[in-house]
Parts: sequence; C-alpha cells; structure tokens
Amino acid sequence: MTILQRSDQGAVARLTLNHPEKLNALSDAMLAALQDQFDSLAQDPSIRVVILGGTGKAFCAGHDLKEMTQGRQAPDDGRAYFADLFARCARVMTAIRTLPQPVIAQPHGIATAAGCQLVASCDLAIAATGTRFGVNGVNIGLFCSTPMVALSRNIPRKQAFEMLTTGEFIDTDRALALGLINRAVDPDRLEAETDALAAQIAAKLGAAVRIGKRAFYDQLEMPLEQAYAYTGEVMVENMMYRDTAEGISAFLEKRSPDWDQD
Amino acid sequence: MTILQRSDQGAVARLTLNHPEKLNALSDAMLAALQDQFDSLAQDPSIRVVILGGTGKAFCAGHDLKEMTQGRQAPDDGRAYFADLFARCARVMTAIRTLPQPVIAQPHGIATAAGCQLVASCDLAIAATGTRFGVNGVNIGLFCSTPMVALSRNIPRKQAFEMLTTGEFIDTDRALALGLINRAVDPDRLEAETDALAAQIAAKLGAAVRIGKRAFYDQLEMPLEQAYAYTGEVMVENMMYRDTAEGISAFLEKRSPDWDQD
Amino acid sequence: MTILQRSDQGAVARLTLNHPEKLNALSDAMLAALQDQFDSLAQDPSIRVVILGGTGKAFCAGHDLKEMTQGRQAPDDGRAYFADLFARCARVMTAIRTLPQPVIAQPHGIATAAGCQLVASCDLAIAATGTRFGVNGVNIGLFCSTPMVALSRNIPRKQAFEMLTTGEFIDTDRALALGLINRAVDPDRLEAETDALAAQIAAKLGAAVRIGKRAFYDQLEMPLEQAYAYTGEVMVENMMYRDTAEGISAFLEKRSPDWDQD
Repeated sequence: MTILQRSDQGAVARLTLNHPEKLNALSDAMLAALQDQFDSLAQDPSIRVVILGGTGKAFCAGHDLKEMTQGRQAPDDGRAYFADLFARCARVMTAIRTLPQPVIAQPHGIATAAGCQLVASCDLAIAATGTRFGVNGVNIGLFCSTPMVALSRNIPRKQAFEMLTTGEFIDTDRALALGLINRAVDPDRLEAETDALAAQIAAKLGAAVRIGKRAFYDQLEMPLEQAYAYTGEVMVENMMYRDTAEGISAFLEKRSPDWDQD
Repeated sequence: MTILQRSDQGAVARLTLNHPEKLNALSDAMLAALQDQFDSLAQDPSIRVVILGGTGKAFCAGHDLKEMTQGRQAPDDGRAYFADLFARCARVMTAIRTLPQPVIAQPHGIATAAGCQLVASCDLAIAATGTRFGVNGVNIGLFCSTPMVALSRNIPRKQAFEMLTTGEFIDTDRALALGLINRAVDPDRLEAETDALAAQIAAKLGAAVRIGKRAFYDQLEMPLEQAYAYTGEVMVENMMYRDTAEGISAFLEKRSPDWDQD
Repeated sequence: MTILQRSDQGAVARLTLNHPEKLNALSDAMLAALQDQFDSLAQDPSIRVVILGGTGKAFCAGHDLKEMTQGRQAPDDGRAYFADLFARCARVMTAIRTLPQPVIAQPHGIATAAGCQLVASCDLAIAATGTRFGVNGVNIGLFCSTPMVALSRNIPRKQAFEMLTTGEFIDTDRALALGLINRAVDPDRLEAETDALAAQIAAKLGAAVRIGKRAFYDQLEMPLEQAYAYTGEVMVENMMYRDTAEGISAFLEKRSPDWDQD
C-alpha cells in the first residue's frame, strides 16, 4: 500500500490520496509523494490531464496536526520545521498551477484547511454532492493563512473572509455558487464524471492546452496591455504548430483533424 | 453595403457588425473598420454612449479562419502576419476600454472566441436570450489565449478555465450568473432594451461618466492606497465642473439640474 | 447626544452612526468621529470584533452635500477642502481594512455612495432585508469614483460598472448574489444576527484573527509565489503562539482549549 496511488488511463493520470485513517492529511510523506508525482508529470508529455481524488471518508483534512505537534520538540520549538513545512506545502500547491497539464480536483466528504486549499489550487473541480468545504484552522487558534491564498483567488472576498474567521463549512451548493468548484455530482457518479471531463480535455491538442494553461495564470497577474502583448505572442506560437494548422484546415473543410498527437 | 454600420441617435452611437455571411468575423477589414470608428468616437464629445450589435445569425464568430489560413502562404509561414493580426485585435479590444464613452455589447445568436472577447471587453452587455458564448478555439487546436485576457477579468477563474479547456458553450443564464453579461432579454426586445440602457446613461453628465470610466479601469489595477489617492484627485476634478455644482445644488433644492450639456 | 455612539459588550464594540436627520451622512464631524474610534480600537486588544450600524431610516447616505456645497465658498472654490475631504474619507475606509479587528457592517434602509462604500469596505456585512444599495452620484453629475474603489473589490466589474453609470439601486437579493453582503436577515433580527456573528468570531483566538486579517488583504495584492512566501511566515508566527499550541493539543486530545486569552 502506498499513501498516494497513481493509475494512468491513456493520456489521463489519476492520483489518489490514500491514507484514510489520517483523513488523507498532508503529512510530510504525503507532501513528498505529491511533489514527486508532480515533478514526474511535468516531464511527461504523454499525460494530458491529471485527476486528484482520495479514498476513505474525506478528500483531505489539511495538515497532519500530530506530526506538527511533534515538530515542537526541536530546540527552536519547531520554528525551522514549520517554516520548511509551509514552504514544502506551498511548493506542492504552486506545482499544480505550473504543471503543464490541467488538474481536476475530485473532492468528496470533507475538504478542510490545506485540503480546501488543494481544491482551490486545482484548475478545475468536480465534487461529490454533500462534500463540506472549510478553512477552519481558526477554531483551534491557527488562522488558515496559506490556504486563503488559493481560496481568495477562487471566491469573492467577503465570503472568503467569513469562512476564514467563522470556521464554518460551506456545502456544495454554496461552493458552486461562489465559484470554488465547477460541478457537484452524485457520489455514485463522481469518478465517472471526472473521468468524462478528463477525457474531454485530453482529446484536445495537448500542446495548445499546455501553452494555454501557463498563459492563463501568467496573464491574470498582469495589467491589461501587458497581458495582451504576452498572450499575443502565445497565440502566434500556437498558430505555428503543425497540428493547429491541420486543426484549422480540417474545420474549414468540415472534416476531422489528422493530428500527429497520439 | 458596409461591414460595419453606424447610426447615431442623439448622444448614442450604434455600431452594427454587418458581415453575416462570415458570421461577422473579425477579419482584417472588420478590425480596421472598428478601429476607425473607435478612433473617431474617442474624439467626439457629442456621443455619450456606444452600442455594439450585429446582423445575421451570430453576433460574432471570432477571427476569420480562412483569412488566417491564407496568411500562412508568406515565406515565414505567416508568423509576422499573425503577430500583427493579434496586435491589431488587442488594440481594438483595448480601444473599447480606453474609449471615453461606455460601450454596451448587444450579443445575440453566437459569440465565440474573439467574439466572446468582444462581449467581455465591453463595459456592459445585454444579450438576447438563447445566445451562446464560448471560447472554443481549443477544439481546433488554437487555445483562446487573447480572448481569455478579457474573459478572465469578467468571470471567476475555475469557470473561465473550464470554458477555455473544454470548448463548451454557456447559455445566457450561466453568462448572467457568472457576470459575463448584465442582462438577458427576449430577442424581440433586444434593441429596445439596449437603447433604453444607452438612453439612461446618455442622460447623465457626460463629463462625469467619462472621467469615471477611465478611473474605473485604472484604479482596478492599483493597490488600495494608490487607488484612493488617484480617485480622490478624480473626485476633486469632478467637483470643479460647473455642471456638477449645478447638479448638486439642484438636488439640494429638489429641482431638475440646468446643465450646459446639450 | 453624539453622532457616533459606541457601546461595548465583552470583546465586541458596536459603533452606531447616529445623525438620522442627515441620514447619517459622512460629514466632517462624522468622519472625524469614525477616525477617532478606529484609532482608539486599533490600540485596544480587549476588543476582538467591531460592528458598524446606524440609527434612523438609512444606514448612511454618503457625503454631506450641504457641507460640500458650503465648501465652495473658499477663494479656490473648494478645491483644497475637497481634496482634504476625500483624503480624510479614504483614511477612514482604509482604517477599516487595517484595523486589527474584523468589522461587520450592519446596513439597513439605504446605503448610497460613500455609504455603500462603507459597506464594501467592511470585512463582513449583514443587511436588513429591504436595504437598497447604490453608487448614484452620477445622477447629480458626481461619479462615485472613490466609492467604486471598495465596490469594485467586492463585486464583478460589469455589475459594478452598471451601478456606477446608471445610478440604479440594487436590493439585498442582488447584493447577496454579487457578493457585496454576506447575509440578509429580517429587520427585526438584524441586531441579533450581527451580535451572533460578532460573538462567534470574538470566541476565536484574537491574536490569530488579527494576524490573519492583515495577511488576508496584504496577500490579495501579491503575485502567487510572493503571497505564499509571506503567508508562510505568518503561519510560522501563528504556530509559535502559546495559545495556538494549546488549541492544537486540545483538539488532538478532544477537549476544550485552555487559552490565556480572557
């Protein structure tokens, strides 16, 4: 048994958090396993979409509080360990954004604190109806300051602030209305639906999706004119792909494209 | 016949994309015609609101793929032409934002790729019920990287990412919920409703709307304190207008303002 | 009688705009009173949450137009006075954001122009059903340029632009859907509901909420990697609090935390 499973189907890689007795907490081991997989996927052009799900009752319950408490036994009361821990966690979250492939979160049960951050950090999310989302560290005296980086880039600010300061959960209806997830589906249909979305995106031209994903996040942080100058260059590069020329010709000739891809 | 019609009514200019056999594609000629109109409108203080609609089955289906494909015949396979094309297109989109007058998009039928970008780039949008919006270049291998600049500044990021990577259309209900449009109305009422909104805004003090529109977009890209310092100056300038003094006095005296405007 | 009342209950301070015959306008005196209170609250660790409500028919109707009109009698037609007025107003709005404690707006009746800005500037808002929100300075020739700084950081841009250029009010359903408020409640329940939300947040560890609130707004204006580097440091500081260590231990041991706080 491994705490992070991977199974590939064609161009889709499915990662499964698999430490149910710890509610798939982001322990040192889990963070390392995720980083390893993301590093490997970043180099793998045969994979065009990644799914991130979990086993057991919860998608992910955040950091491993027992492990963190043990960290306090160092001479510096854990300060260096915590700094390293949050840096490693941020690296994993940032790796999702910089990964060439779109990543679909597949939360169910509970997604709290860094587990909610994981959902917010993914490019897309399909949740099982009934999933509860929260950034409730405030309840134990630890404000969810790093999770809020991802959360506040997904939902409006007053609603994010409420979740952060009250520690209250939101349900899938609310998560949907706020923009935290793309869709909520019956738990029985969860895997089938994420598979279908993954297959739909995997059928697109991988090179175009890759260049587009990177440009998406980069341009978000630029002023308008700079964003246009940058994405204009991206479009030119995209137009130069042989498969894009073929895709456009096929469309104009009302036939299916004959892509080199696959 | 011209591919871009203009008809003025009082202080409202109505531009109509009129190349229905091309689904009002943003061809070289259409981009040039739009740029000409925006350049002219920018100098025309008698116009206080602009409406942008279209004839035929679609509001706008994006770039002219046939023309783009012909561009590939240049010795550099079209690289220079494409770079220039996307720069010209970005200039048109940016011109909408920098135009002193508010611009109301009036989409119907289909608004895809750069056509969806056109809607997102306008200050306001009233759509005909049944309009479908998409950034579906990904379906032919060309990620909608420039359209997403405008789209991602209108709707939440996970929902924008979904549209960009799946190529799926959204309907007017969804566009409304996400913030891409202000209102959806019966197709029979479309022109009357945009006319009414335009008339409502045109009845305001044009100088105040002009200074306000520019400040709106400029302050959005500033940190909070800078945004306040800047808009504070804008408010002072606005207070110095003779017509604003008269507007405030009229309000306090419960009478209609006697504005120099018109 | 004072135009700004304050009553404390435990760790919650309630400020009440109390100049109903002026619809609680942000006159020179009201701005000074608010600034005084915020300055004082910023130094008061015994207060963990602030509520901001109002008496009379309206929460707040914006600037005091009579006073502003009198300002025009200066030799410079009021230019220096207006510049100072908008700077003082911006300082009050910014003080809400930089205040260590969360601030809950409690609007009822009408919240217009700088009154709407006040709601948007607070961290949270619970409104009485039936409250109307507007940035309608445009109706008298004065575009709500400073109010829009706060408004456009709360709601999507096309919807903000519509409010600013049409001067139309929105009701609580719409304010809720757009993200301007967190909740709308029956007017009879208004004070009880804000009290309950304030009590819920006041029961959290104040030091954690304080550090979290500051980080929330600061990281919003940073690019992703910088936001993570900064909030990572905030998390480390938070972990070093004695009460946080106790909070985590208590959670792991399934008991209530024994906090030094209070």
